[in-house]
This record gives sequence, structure tokens and C-alpha cells, in this order.
Amino acid sequence: MAQVRALVLERQHELALRDIELPLEVGPGMVKIAIHTVGVCGSDVHYYTHGRIGPFVVEAPMVLGHEAAGTVIELGEGVSHLKVGDRVCMEPGIPDPNSRASRLGLYNVDPAVSFWATPPVHGVLTPEVVHPANYTFKLPDHVSFAEGAMVEPFAVGMQAASKARIAPGDIAVVLGAGPIGTMVALAALAGGCARVIIADLAQPKLDIAARYQGVVPVNISEKNLAEEVARLTEGWGADLVFECSGSPRAWETIMQLPRPGGAIVIVGLPVEPVKVDIAAASIKEVRIENVFRYAHQYDRAIALIASGKVDLKPLISQTFAFDDAIAAFDRAVEARPSDVKLQIRIGAPA
Amino acid sequence: MAQVRALVLERQHELALRDIELPLEVGPGMVKIAIHTVGVCGSDVHYYTHGRIGPFVVEAPMVLGHEAAGTVIELGEGVSHLKVGDRVCMEPGIPDPNSRASRLGLYNVDPAVSFWATPPVHGVLTPEVVHPANYTFKLPDHVSFAEGAMVEPFAVGMQAASKARIAPGDIAVVLGAGPIGTMVALAALAGGCARVIIADLAQPKLDIAARYQGVVPVNISEKNLAEEVARLTEGWGADLVFECSGSPRAWETIMQLPRPGGAIVIVGLPVEPVKVDIAAASIKEVRIENVFRYAHQYDRAIALIASGKVDLKPLISQTFAFDDAIAAFDRAVEARPSDVKLQIRIGAPA
Amino acid sequence: MAQVRALVLERQHELALRDIELPLEVGPGMVKIAIHTVGVCGSDVHYYTHGRIGPFVVEAPMVLGHEAAGTVIELGEGVSHLKVGDRVCMEPGIPDPNSRASRLGLYNVDPAVSFWATPPVHGVLTPEVVHPANYTFKLPDHVSFAEGAMVEPFAVGMQAASKARIAPGDIAVVLGAGPIGTMVALAALAGGCARVIIADLAQPKLDIAARYQGVVPVNISEKNLAEEVARLTEGWGADLVFECSGSPRAWETIMQLPRPGGAIVIVGLPVEPVKVDIAAASIKEVRIENVFRYAHQYDRAIALIASGKVDLKPLISQTFAFDDAIAAFDRAVEARPSDVKLQIRIGAPA
Amino acid sequence: MAQVRALVLERQHELALRDIELPLEVGPGMVKIAIHTVGVCGSDVHYYTHGRIGPFVVEAPMVLGHEAAGTVIELGEGVSHLKVGDRVCMEPGIPDPNSRASRLGLYNVDPAVSFWATPPVHGVLTPEVVHPANYTFKLPDHVSFAEGAMVEPFAVGMQAASKARIAPGDIAVVLGAGPIGTMVALAALAGGCARVIIADLAQPKLDIAARYQGVVPVNISEKNLAEEVARLTEGWGADLVFECSGSPRAWETIMQLPRPGGAIVIVGLPVEPVKVDIAAASIKEVRIENVFRYAHQYDRAIALIASGKVDLKPLISQTFAFDDAIAAFDRAVEARPSDVKLQIRIGAPA
Repeated sequence: MAQVRALVLERQHELALRDIELPLEVGPGMVKIAIHTVGVCGSDVHYYTHGRIGPFVVEAPMVLGHEAAGTVIELGEGVSHLKVGDRVCMEPGIPDPNSRASRLGLYNVDPAVSFWATPPVHGVLTPEVVHPANYTFKLPDHVSFAEGAMVEPFAVGMQAASKARIAPGDIAVVLGAGPIGTMVALAALAGGCARVIIADLAQPKLDIAARYQGVVPVNISEKNLAEEVARLTEGWGADLVFECSGSPRAWETIMQLPRPGGAIVIVGLPVEPVKVDIAAASIKEVRIENVFRYAHQYDRAIALIASGKVDLKPLISQTFAFDDAIAAFDRAVEARPSDVKLQIRIGAPA
Repeated sequence: MAQVRALVLERQHELALRDIELPLEVGPGMVKIAIHTVGVCGSDVHYYTHGRIGPFVVEAPMVLGHEAAGTVIELGEGVSHLKVGDRVCMEPGIPDPNSRASRLGLYNVDPAVSFWATPPVHGVLTPEVVHPANYTFKLPDHVSFAEGAMVEPFAVGMQAASKARIAPGDIAVVLGAGPIGTMVALAALAGGCARVIIADLAQPKLDIAARYQGVVPVNISEKNLAEEVARLTEGWGADLVFECSGSPRAWETIMQLPRPGGAIVIVGLPVEPVKVDIAAASIKEVRIENVFRYAHQYDRAIALIASGKVDLKPLISQTFAFDDAIAAFDRAVEARPSDVKLQIRIGAPA
Repeated sequence: MAQVRALVLERQHELALRDIELPLEVGPGMVKIAIHTVGVCGSDVHYYTHGRIGPFVVEAPMVLGHEAAGTVIELGEGVSHLKVGDRVCMEPGIPDPNSRASRLGLYNVDPAVSFWATPPVHGVLTPEVVHPANYTFKLPDHVSFAEGAMVEPFAVGMQAASKARIAPGDIAVVLGAGPIGTMVALAALAGGCARVIIADLAQPKLDIAARYQGVVPVNISEKNLAEEVARLTEGWGADLVFECSGSPRAWETIMQLPRPGGAIVIVGLPVEPVKVDIAAASIKEVRIENVFRYAHQYDRAIALIASGKVDLKPLISQTFAFDDAIAAFDRAVEARPSDVKLQIRIGAPA
Repeated sequence: MAQVRALVLERQHELALRDIELPLEVGPGMVKIAIHTVGVCGSDVHYYTHGRIGPFVVEAPMVLGHEAAGTVIELGEGVSHLKVGDRVCMEPGIPDPNSRASRLGLYNVDPAVSFWATPPVHGVLTPEVVHPANYTFKLPDHVSFAEGAMVEPFAVGMQAASKARIAPGDIAVVLGAGPIGTMVALAALAGGCARVIIADLAQPKLDIAARYQGVVPVNISEKNLAEEVARLTEGWGADLVFECSGSPRAWETIMQLPRPGGAIVIVGLPVEPVKVDIAAASIKEVRIENVFRYAHQYDRAIALIASGKVDLKPLISQTFAFDDAIAAFDRAVEARPSDVKLQIRIGAPA
């Protein structure tokens, strides 16, 4: 264990940038990473404002942050695909490779996975962290740390795009133009969709998404979404619908959106069970997929960013110094509609 | 048009076996069939007792019956794969082959499909019917008319089994041991499942299903289904869950049943939207499929029956003469738990 | 029948721009189209130079051309989704909607399909043609006739991308940088690949493909492809390999390219059976897919072009007037490595 | 290490039942098993007769045998799903759970897998063996050791059935009625096929397969297989073709067998590359799958055996005592057409 500086959530509503004891031994198969950039995620903010997410309750001081990029500074025994000095980003979830789910390739649904900044596991808003090399991914030279720290939220979009089983040229609808909806829209386009119709009430969010080629924004405070989708698809409906709002209201009319034989991919989680119109889903034989974090998406996400097919840089709204980490969280609490992603830089500017 | 005898639903609660005018011209691509046996379906009974199913309202006298087998007695122009004397069964839905859904191979979700005994389309409880040859399927010599008339309900089970994308050796749960649940269970077993755990409150229904090898009955008035499934799957959960009860209560606990990465196939339709625990579905990344009738299942269903892998004969509870057709419906209204399928024989005993 | 001017292949090696009698009656479900632009396809050229392709032999004068766009000038009975004046492109294959393959949604593998400019069926290098409305697709206003006439060859790429079942972020190899290889590469990128490694001996072809973002050219006269693929994939191999060269030599080493569990999609057809190293395919459990023309790809191809994700304009090497149609074919026979697509314009410049 | 008795292949053509030093320490996550029954596999015999299989050469004495069942007699640290006294069977391949292939769930194509009785790894024709608990599977009480030792070859059939993506009611062809072809036929039937047409030259092999319901034997020394398949499928072709003969001759006509859009699953490995008619595969858009051993099939295979859907007992032709192990191998070398599986019993009769 070592005494290191970190952004600690002491309890609900109380953050401190202070020293804390963290384990930094580099075991076999592990690497030590100097953290450079960490994104602020909605879940980090939710622990700050509510002290819990569902069954996960903050009962002891916990370091926040799980969207991270940095530089490898030490290698454990047996690590061969990375070397000291590699610029990397890391998957925040550490599964048991011998669990039944992991052996099937479904490590994200392994009930025993340990995930950064999910009580009682510490996150990485701290200068150094030790992590399994297998879940540490090299960044190409021309991909910045800031982009590397965007891989985590983009991987959620990738998982959604992957579950959707996009056929090239599909037309998709994304409900909700917040950070996750925007990530899903970009992943769906990169993953083969010809067009993504994105729906929200907040015009500033739609304006950001609409900067990307292939995105068709629909402000649902002004227009009827089902009518717009029908108009844009000659009455046939969308091939794919990504529900990213988490709003129970979305479920009242969602079955109007897919085409016969289309699919709905659920990314946004309503807090309570929601009413689903199964008869309406049945008549179209709608397939419904659920997404939980991601598996096997980091290398794919990095490849899409590196090839230039996906540009996440415009989504980084502001970058804060590590000393201003609490200010970054307070800004995130404001939830400005023009903010997509706030990041905290721990390392020197790249 | 011709005057022919038929079982006519005059209006809600009123059946008559009387003459009615029906079209019997044999156009190109059509065949005329002498009807031999017709099964009584829950939907036929529902029109009798309620006068409607959802948006479909009985507003004029309508012939009932859509689970039928018979003998080809006349061929329209251009029909080559059938000949007079062929023993056949028929798909009751007639799609438009040029619709967008049909061209994609999804004719069952074509909004323009015309379906027997669905207002205002007449059914086939009448001695003769004209039907497209493409939706008329030859029965092998050793498959009886009675079995032929079971192909329609079994095709629903086949569609569910097909949508499930069974991996050989899967363990499935079927909720509801009524006629549809039983058909789904048999199709799931024939389609590759090693075992089907079937759940119901009515012991007589479970007893019938349990006669089949591979079926594990669970009476949920006595046992906790989620615990039974956990016990039978070493805590992992079922690969597949077929919801055939249509009961909103089933949805309260259904997410406990599938394994991580498992699937739910919805066959039973609740009348109203039901509350679905999306957070619980998400954590397992459950895939949810919907089933609407069937497409491309008749030849497959017949092949399974013909090869001996599926034996539907034990599910025929009683056979009525055409003259006793109203009695057959009144018996069906009783909904005896030991009745699976009642049939009406119009032709001579085979 | 009407006497109309057309580019007629009289027999092998002999083209004539002359009047010929063609049927131009507009039956139910048909539309008449004024042809604007027609691309010259390798198969057209092959009939010109060889008089046959496999079992299809030119035994009577035949109009060439099947990559076409134009304007609707007359509607048959019952056509509702098009109107006179619509700018359109057309699928050259006309399936029987009632065939077994078509009903399954696989109309491209219907043995009875009738295909433009495939003996004895005439093509469309002529001012007007009558075609089923269901296989006639509206072009958005900002998509030119020239692009519309590129939809046909691009649809082959789309079919390959669709068969590949691309997972978002896949790395692909395309063998052969001719017109089809290039179309496949663009479809694979639009369809979700992060990167396409394209291999050829001809540097000018590679240079054209390499103008597109995400394309990595490899000149196999200079480099070992398997080593390059290994280098670019950290020794893992490519997720997908598209064989577009049709060369038996490609098959000698192709099994070195895919990753364990990867796939090969065959687009290029060798004239004779080729030696395939099944033991090498087995050890990686390679999936191999075959592509025959396309089905259900036109609307998807147009959507990708319309949204700006795919730009085919740089691939149009030169456009000839209808009066110069024979010169266009003689230029095509030259097979200049810098030529991708030659087109013939029948209508007025757009 | 311990001195234990084992059936040792000293070198090509030379077997000895003698003492040899084998490691029997039970590390964490491992179990020690008292071997009861071991099946004789074609690959064991091939090492005996040829001294090698492809790149795997017997360069030092090697214990044979990899189809095994037995009883757990000691548990390593951390093993919770097994207990001493459990009757079990074991997967002979031990992958690295941290390899890239294993993490994707594709552990069978992990190049680093270590496999029993594949040089230089020892097999299990010896009284005790230590094995990872994760690859050791409990047998239900009513499944015998003899059946347990059949799970390994049946798992190959399961992998083939799984790769085939059987739709319920498919019609399949199996080429080759040897032990593997028979296992594949049974797995295909259990996995959802309505019928399996099995083809061979040896009537005794066909007679054994034909005892199973749903199997249609075709002796290809008497009948033309393509004609038989056409006759049995109304000219449409088989949904699935499993190539289990490994014969280059099978490839000369195999493309006549699948229907348009059908699939070929390759299980039998020709020694040399074989000529494949790609043009013929293309016109039907045939999907071709390769099978390499199996992954995630043991629990599924056991479930199908336990439920009674698959009965492998009739395929056990004779059982030898451990002392007669060399005689068992010499009998296997005879390759009697009426022999399917020979087994060697090391433990006491069950």
C-alpha cells in the first residue's frame, strides 16, 4: 500500500482531494500506469449527489473516476504485449477469467466483476494505478490521452452498436442526446448505419450531435417523433431504435418507431420497471436487446478513433486541472445542456 | 360465389351451422381443397365469447376456423407442386407477395396480410375452400388429417423456437402449459433444447406436458419457479425463457429466470402494457424476442411430425362431427384443464 | 414492341448502335423509365470479348448494359410509391416473387431470376425501358444520375459487407483493387470496419483506393501480405477477408490472413475449381461466405450515398455520349489500371 | 511426479503397458480423477500407426487416450462446483484463460491450447489424472462412465451442430458414416434437424446409423446422392451438409447438395488441399463453416444424454480391460466397419 493523492468521495455530497492509502504492487500480469486524463462520468456524479446507484451504496470513502488514459510505467511478470512508455487506456472492469460468463466471452455480465469507482472499489482519479495488462490497451501515437479517456464512454456506444447487429445502411433512431445517446449515435454510424435520427427536448444537445454527418436531429418539444420517423422512412419505420433516455415516457410510444422485424436496443435504464406495450411489439416481431457496459469493445473503439472514422474530440467540453477536480464535479452537477464531457488532467499537457 | 354450409359466428355469443355464400372460383396459382379436419383455436373461441380481439371486431357474420387439413380437389392454372388427391394442410394467412415485408421474407409481419377467421375474413369450417397453392402443404402418407390440422398451432411453437435461436443442448423454461405453451415446449425440444421446464398452476395441464421426454413440470402453486430453475441449472439460469402465459404476473419475476446472456421469447400477449424490469434485464443483457404467428414454418413442422420427432396426436382431446360443431365450441368455452385441442371433422373418418 | 435505338452485341467482338425491337408496354406494377446514365460493367465487356460467361452464351443479338439510372416517365396500374418525374435507379434482376427462394427473402439465388444483359435477356443501353416498380428506387435530389448508375456495382459490395456480418470496428482485408474490390472496400468501411487493408499488384489501382479514409494499400509485388496483416493486427489476423481477385493464387495463402474465428467472403469467382487448404481453415474455424449479386441492398446503398458516408463520384473515370458507346467499350477492353468505372450518358447532362 | 502404470506409445507401431512418471500434484483450481473408462479415438490409433498427425510428431514416449470418464478423488484449492466422489468426464484440451481467443470465448482455436495425447502432452490411459476443475464435468447419476467417455467424440458432433446454426426442422446431409459422421448425425438430430440423410459406401456403418429415428441412409455405391437429396427435398436441396468423410472425392459433387442459401459444415479434414467449385458455391450463396474440436459443448452434450434425447450406448461396440489395452488398439487398427467405438475400462465395472 502507498499514500497517494486522490479525489475521494467521503460520503454523499462531500468530495476531498486528499491523500489516501491505495495498493500499488505490480503483480504478475499487471502493469502500473501513470494516469494522465480522467473523464467525469454521470455515474461518478450520481454517487456524489445521491451516494448510491441502485444496490451500490457509498459506505466508506471511495476514489472516483473510471474513464482514464495514461502511460505504462512498470510491467508485472509475464506481460509481453505492452512496454514501459506505452500510452494506454484501461477498461475499468476486472472480471474473473475463470468464471462461467468470462469463459463464454461474456465477461461484462459476470456477476463477480470488480469495477472502478463502484462501491467498494476505488476509482482512478489519482496519479498512479495498477491494472491487469489484458485490460490495458495501447493508444496509437496520434490518439491523444484526452481521446483515450473517451474510449470508456464510447465503448458503451460500441456495445450497443454491436448488440444491434447493424446491417450496412440501416436507419436508426436514438432517443436521448445526452453523452450516452451521442456516443451511441456515433457508434451506430461508425458501425454501419446510413443515418441516425436523434431525438431530445434540449436543442443545445441536438445541435452538438447534428454537427456529425449522418445525424438527423429531431426536437421532440416541437415535432412528433413517430411522424418524423415515418416521413424519413417512407412509412416503413426505423431498422433500429436505441433507447438512451432512460425515461419511462419514451416507452409509451417507442413501439411506433421500429419497422416490422426491427429492433430496440436498451441503453438507458429507468429506475423503476416501465410499462411496455408487448402487443405492439409482437405485431412487428420487434427484437429487444439489453446492454450492460461492454465486452471486447476497447480495441475496436480505438481502431475506429485511430482510423479517423470517429472523432470524439468535439465532445470534450472542458478540461480541468487535477487541483480543480472538485470544481469539475460541481460543474458536472450543473448539467449544462451544452456540456458533453468534462475531463480532469492529472499528467502534464500532452 | 356458391351457397355452402358453414359454421358461422353471427355475432358475439351466437353460432349457427347454416348456408352462406362463399367464393369458390379457382384462380391462377390457387387450389380448391375439400376440408377434412379443423381444430378449434382459442382465438375462434374468443371471437365467440367476446366478439372481438383487440382491434378486430366481428361486425358481420363470419365463418370460424383456421386450423385445417384436407384434400386437393381442383388445381388453378400454373400450380405444379400439388396434384388432385394430395392430402394437405394450409397456412391461414395470405400475404401480398409484393409487399415490402414479404419481399424480405417476413410475410407474417406484413400489415396487409389476410388471415382466416379474422374479421372480416371468413374461416374454413365449411366443406370446401380455395387457397393459394404456395401456402398449401402436402402431408406425407403416414401423417393423418388430424395431425395436419395440428400444424397450424404447432407452427406458432416453431416460430418461437426459431426466434429463440436455440443452441443445441439449451435448457429452456416455458411459462404456461396451455395449448400454446405445450406446442412451444415440443417445438423447443424438437428444435434442440435438452430440457424444457414448464410452469403452470393447473396440474392436469402439467401432467399432459410431462408425458413428453425432456419436459420437467413445475407447479407454481407449490414451488418457487426461480428457485427451481436455479436448482436445475446449478444457479446459472435458463438459456431461454418462453413466456406463453400472457399473464402480467409472469413479468414480475421473469428476469430471475434467464442466465446472463440468455433470452426471453414472448408468445403470450397481455391485453394491457405490462411492467418490465429493464434494470434487471440489463444486468444480464437479456435478449427479448417477439413472435407473431409464423413464417416459413409449415414445411419444417410437417418434416418434424413426419420424421417422428414430434408426436402431436396425444394432444387431440376430442373430435366432433361437423354437425356437432357448436357443441365443440361450447365445450371449448368450458376450458377444461385436461383439454388441449378439440377438433371438428368435416370429411369422412380417415 | 417498339423500334428503338440500342447498343447491340451482335455476336462476340461485334457491337452496333442500331435500331432494335424491344417491348415497352407498361403492365400493372411496372414503370417506364427514360434511361439517363449506364455504367460499363466487366460482365458487359466479357460478353463483348468472349461471347459468353460460363453457361450464358450470346446466341442472338443482345442489348448490353445493366448499371442504369433515369427518370420515371409512365406508371403502370397499382404503382403508388413512385411518380412520373422521379429520378431513379433500377435493380437489373427480376425475380419471381412467388418462387421458394423469393418467399424466403433470397431472391438473388432464385434460379429463375431474369437479369438484364445476361443472354437471352436484353440490357438497357437504350433510351427507354419498362421495369417492375418494386425494383425501381427513387434517388434523393442531391444524388446524381451518374451516382445512381453506380448503385448496381456498389450493391455487390453491400451484399459482401452484409454477408460478412461486420462487427463494428472490424479490420478487413480486401484481395484485389479492381472495381469490385474497391466497391467492397468502401462498403466494408461504410458497413462498420475500422480499416480495410487492400492488396493488389497494380499501384495505380491501389492509389485510387488509398484516397479513401481507412484504406491501407499493400502492393503485393513488393510486400508479403500475410506479414503485413500480422504486423497491422499485432499477430492476431484480420477479422474479415474479402476475396475479390478471382485468382487461384489468392487461395494458396489466404488462410494465413484471417484471425482465429474470422471469416472469408468470396466475391471474385475463379473460372475453375481452386485448391483450398481446408486443414488450415479448420484450425482457425474460419467461416466462408459466398456472394451472388445482391438482394435488398439498393435502398441501403442509396441511403449510404445520400447521407455522404460513401462517395462514389471519384470512381467515375470517364463519361461517354451514347453515340460514342462503342468507343466506351473499346476503352473498357483496354483495362487501363487507372480506370475504375466508365459510364455512357444517354440523357441530357444533368 | 509419481510412477504410474499407463498405456504408452513408445514410438510408431510400438505400444507398452508399463510404468511411467507423471505429475499428479493437485494445484489450485485442479482436481484429481480416478479414471474409469477411456475410449479409443481415431487420432490415438493414427499416432500408433503413423507416428504423427500433420505437424504433431511422436518424438518421445507418450501416454495415449483422451476420451475419459472417472471419479473425483481429490480437490485443489478453490474448487467449489465439484466434490470428492463426483462421477465426471473431462475436456482433454486445456486452454490459457488469459489468451485472446479464450477471452473471446473461442478457447478451442487458442493456438496455445494443450491437448491430451497430442505430442508432447500425455493422455489419460492411466489410473489417475489431475485436471482443471473448470474442464471437468459432473455426470448425472443415471449416465454411466461408458457414456461419459463418449461425451468427447459427441462434443465434436455438437460443435458441428452448433456451427451449423440449425433452424428447427432443417433437413441435413452427413457425408461419411464413420464414428464422427454418426456423432454429427445424432447431434444434428438432437440439435433440431427433422431428418439426416447419411451417405457412405459401407453398408454396415449405414445400418448402425439407420437404427436412429430420423436417419435416412444412402449407400453411395448404389445410389446417386445428389439425386437422392433432390428427391427427398422436392428438388430444393438440403438446408445443411456436414462433410465428415475427409475425402477429396466428396468435394467434387458437394455443391449439388445444399439448397440456395444453404450451408456446408466441414468436420472431416482432407490431408491435402482439395479442389472446391467456388462458382457453384457462389450461385447458391453457400455458407461454409469449419469445426475444430469444440468449445462450451460438454455441459450441453451431457444435458442431451441425460434427458434421453441422445442415446450413445448402442455405439459402444466392445469394452476391453485395461490389461488388454494393446489388444483394443490392435482391434481398432482393423477398422471393422461394424465397430463404432471401442472402450478400455480401467476402473471396476460400474
